Amino acid sequence: MLSIPSPNALDASRLIVEPTPTPKPVPSDSSTLVFGQTFTDHMLTVRWNVSTGWDAPVIKPYAPLMLDPASTVLHYAPTLFEGMKAYKDKQGRTRLFRPDLNMARMNRGAARMAFPTFDGSELVSLIKELLRIDDRWMPTDPGCSMYIRPTMIGTRASLGVGPSTEVLLFVIMCPVAKYYSSGAKPVSLLASTKDVRAFPGGTGSYKFGLNYAACVAPQMEAAQKGYQQVLWVLGDDHECTEVGMMNLVGGKKREDGSVELFTPPLSDIILPGVTRNSVLALARAHADPSNPFTLEGVPSNLVVSERKVTMPELRDAARDGTLLEVFGTGTAAVVTSVERIGYEGEDVKVPVEGGNGFGPIAGAFYEALQAIQYGDLEFADWSVVV
Amino acid sequence: MLSIPSPNALDASRLIVEPTPTPKPVPSDSSTLVFGQTFTDHMLTVRWNVSTGWDAPVIKPYAPLMLDPASTVLHYAPTLFEGMKAYKDKQGRTRLFRPDLNMARMNRGAARMAFPTFDGSELVSLIKELLRIDDRWMPTDPGCSMYIRPTMIGTRASLGVGPSTEVLLFVIMCPVAKYYSSGAKPVSLLASTKDVRAFPGGTGSYKFGLNYAACVAPQMEAAQKGYQQVLWVLGDDHECTEVGMMNLVGGKKREDGSVELFTPPLSDIILPGVTRNSVLALARAHADPSNPFTLEGVPSNLVVSERKVTMPELRDAARDGTLLEVFGTGTAAVVTSVERIGYEGEDVKVPVEGGNGFGPIAGAFYEALQAIQYGDLEFADWSVVV
Repeated sequence: MLSIPSPNALDASRLIVEPTPTPKPVPSDSSTLVFGQTFTDHMLTVRWNVSTGWDAPVIKPYAPLMLDPASTVLHYAPTLFEGMKAYKDKQGRTRLFRPDLNMARMNRGAARMAFPTFDGSELVSLIKELLRIDDRWMPTDPGCSMYIRPTMIGTRASLGVGPSTEVLLFVIMCPVAKYYSSGAKPVSLLASTKDVRAFPGGTGSYKFGLNYAACVAPQMEAAQKGYQQVLWVLGDDHECTEVGMMNLVGGKKREDGSVELFTPPLSDIILPGVTRNSVLALARAHADPSNPFTLEGVPSNLVVSERKVTMPELRDAARDGTLLEVFGTGTAAVVTSVERIGYEGEDVKVPVEGGNGFGPIAGAFYEALQAIQYGDLEFADWSVVV
Repeated sequence: MLSIPSPNALDASRLIVEPTPTPKPVPSDSSTLVFGQTFTDHMLTVRWNVSTGWDAPVIKPYAPLMLDPASTVLHYAPTLFEGMKAYKDKQGRTRLFRPDLNMARMNRGAARMAFPTFDGSELVSLIKELLRIDDRWMPTDPGCSMYIRPTMIGTRASLGVGPSTEVLLFVIMCPVAKYYSSGAKPVSLLASTKDVRAFPGGTGSYKFGLNYAACVAPQMEAAQKGYQQVLWVLGDDHECTEVGMMNLVGGKKREDGSVELFTPPLSDIILPGVTRNSVLALARAHADPSNPFTLEGVPSNLVVSERKVTMPELRDAARDGTLLEVFGTGTAAVVTSVERIGYEGEDVKVPVEGGNGFGPIAGAFYEALQAIQYGDLEFADWSVVV
């Protein structure tokens, strides 16, 4: 009988560490760092191929990747990534925020991309080890954190379009400043009725590189017109989908005096954001009288809706004074309040009255999430000590 | 007065050639080559950055690219490419086929991708020089050719989503066998009503890598169900858009006895294929009584339509016997006849009665295009001697 070796699984216990012989100086003031441009001493790489499975993971000096010019990632864009952060708590311990959600999303994307899937807890173990090895890079200034970028790319050196028989998984990390170094600033959006980010039957719900490249030119056009980011709308009814690279959340006064917190439901066109999920869970905990958790400054009669939102609805609610807030949620900035939305030649004005650059609802989420992320507040098992 | 240097344009006269010290053996039998896996000795690379413009072009040994792991192409998929072929004529001269169309499409894509544009004739000059340098790799077996892959990728080493301030343009080449080494074989398609390739407001009309990655898993699903490629349909009326990675063309009998050649019109959801364009031009020349060009075996009462085509229309035309042919057009295979289309649980049978693996219309286009590409037939100024 012929014995066919079964391909190796991703296995953190096989890790090989090659420490850098030339450690770089760590920036003395992490509050001045530009997002995503300063990387730590090491990176994690794990190769996979279809016949042998996952190679031994390697943590080695951060260095250029050698890629055959025919590598599929350079031609057909098989690439997916995650965005995560690690935080130092007051006890000096490093903490990850809900890494299980990132791993689940990454595996869901891997399946859609015809990439190999893996045991997410193995990759979390490897990321923890990378954090330990580059611990001296962990920012300790208030509000600073370590941005972690797990990435998978197709590396088969062939111009035929087909399954990725070779894949590279790698993780790089950058210390990042508080996103709003001089206090939060609300942003302006231009509702795009011309360019579409995602569509039914497409891949907008996956963290695929391919969802991002085509957003750059529309973003530059919006900037030329005086808006900072694009609000992606879809279809004849101008359904709101996402804000720049963030999920969209809003607050509205209802006739019975309660407040509705609304966000588009998950679908083909909405990325299942970790911050979005967390905001909804916190809002539901706040609205639940049996749960002791509260969002400071947010009315207790909060109704949480995942439902379709359109630009005409937002415009009308702004006009009649029922629109309370609009904000984006995402890992990089946590929450970002919106102050105006350019739509069909008019500027829809959105209230931002929290006094600290956030509306009161967005600000409450920001404070609560930061407290959980830095380990000052326990909520479920969201904050994971490394 | 401060003098601001204007960024350099792409300039073929600045070419630097670094010949390989270790030429590889050229495959003795090009008819056995697998598409896109064997590369010539050299490649062309040209770096661009936003402040100085285009560097001097370099032709150097084919070798891995060194890419920072934070390069935007690996994360956000800013990549676009072209597919072109070069052919040896009976006089031993190398010929390109309509390279001006590839250059125009590449520049149109570059603008949409927020990449730099360039003078296409400069890149054609550089490609000609690469062909001269690697001339010993040019296949001379009948039906074989050199596949040329110009590519542009964003290389800025930063995780911020934004314009590509650094770009690498490169060209690699592979000798390729006749696509149908043992005669043309018609293919089966599965009409995809679940996964969508392109959509209004999106980038389906650009040769962007991002349009390809998400096609792999649906293609694998189709293969599992016994179909070779996916027919991409869109919307509730199941509008036909493209066939695998090719444009869709069909032929239909009309009540007045004439034959309609139809293909979807160019739009956001259709790639402006060079072969598609050429097929339409040849068909119109054939139908024009004042033009001496004829497609052998194709009725002279040919009507050429660029119009919407739906799956119900194709199914009904197959049932009532008016459907003559369906085929895909593209650079790799030139034309590919379709013999059946899986649609809503039934197999729509498409006639393929040319006797050589093509229907008569597809076969006539194949013969005419090959004759022009190999310099055996003059048509306009389509075939360009290197």
